[in-house]
Amino acid sequence: MALNELRRERGQSATALLNATAEILSEATNIEISLSEVAKRSGVNSAMIKYHFGNKEGLLVALLEREADREMVQLEHLVGMDWKADRKLKTHIFGIINAYYRSPYLNRLIHFLVSSGSPAASQRVTELFIQPIIKAYTKIVAQGVEEGKFRNVDPGMLYYAIIGAADHIYFAGYSIPTILGGDGLNDEIKNKYAEMIAEIFLMGLKPKS
Amino acid sequence: MALNELRRERGQSATALLNATAEILSEATNIEISLSEVAKRSGVNSAMIKYHFGNKEGLLVALLEREADREMVQLEHLVGMDWKADRKLKTHIFGIINAYYRSPYLNRLIHFLVSSGSPAASQRVTELFIQPIIKAYTKIVAQGVEEGKFRNVDPGMLYYAIIGAADHIYFAGYSIPTILGGDGLNDEIKNKYAEMIAEIFLMGLKPKS
Repeated sequence: MALNELRRERGQSATALLNATAEILSEATNIEISLSEVAKRSGVNSAMIKYHFGNKEGLLVALLEREADREMVQLEHLVGMDWKADRKLKTHIFGIINAYYRSPYLNRLIHFLVSSGSPAASQRVTELFIQPIIKAYTKIVAQGVEEGKFRNVDPGMLYYAIIGAADHIYFAGYSIPTILGGDGLNDEIKNKYAEMIAEIFLMGLKPKS
Repeated sequence: MALNELRRERGQSATALLNATAEILSEATNIEISLSEVAKRSGVNSAMIKYHFGNKEGLLVALLEREADREMVQLEHLVGMDWKADRKLKTHIFGIINAYYRSPYLNRLIHFLVSSGSPAASQRVTELFIQPIIKAYTKIVAQGVEEGKFRNVDPGMLYYAIIGAADHIYFAGYSIPTILGGDGLNDEIKNKYAEMIAEIFLMGLKPKS
């Protein structure tokens, strides 16, 4: 087998393993995943998990990397657009709530890596999500201050506030039927929540009059 | 031994076990607690854990119940006070951030019971924290609308937003040295964060002009 072909095959098996992991996690309600199930679902030999990712944590971190890449490219694009700062922040808030909605495991995966992963996994979450988002907030807040739309708040603190608010309806999702009624999170609730959060932050960040 | 005395002794051993659990959890960075350590620290025979609490989850839920009782009595008192709604909400936001700060394990305990506990444990978190807080928000929002201070937002959605924002600086506390500098959460950061969150929500909930 030529070297290129070998590389391509290996890339394909890694992708198949990540896809299978994403599928299984989307169906589950927790992050307890069996590697043999991942192998079976992907049609890839389970030895390849060790080859590509080292262990289960490595597999989960790689999945998070794939998700983060996608979202962070979009965020960087948003920051560079010729829009007012408040429109950028609103779009970002909808974007983050929709990302959690599209990948129901994303939130659980981050929580799992932070609370039960190794220190290296927590550090990876910081690099993949927290730092790029704060970099974006730093620019958006500075622009908003210049445009007279925002107060000069600490972008790091704003990170905890916005992501915390966006995250919690997913993290505490088990309580939605009791609190908001219905079977759980759906399009209508998700959109209404994004609208409320965006409104609170956009109004709440205005300069004091 | 008289029955009363027996009851008192048993009550004392339960309290000693809960105190020891709280102490150990305050020192730890996760929720992995060994029952033999709890027994040793409390000076109570480990068989009493089973007697009082059934198992480890029962012990953790009992500890959460004790914390929740304390906080929810204060919240009910706050709601009944002769204050404007915005002052009540601001006081509550500081209260919840301070409660997490005082009991560093409270946040981890809730997250642990929700993500790794039984469905009964999640349900208990709903009853102990979520429902009483939403009951309070329902009254505070209604009062604020009447006073012209707040829009009429869904108190359940407001719960996810405020608690999410208050919670996240603790949940993602591992990232504080990277994001905000220093060694981690301290009085100054905590107070500045509470001030920012309270300001965002008080301004963000104002009626639209």
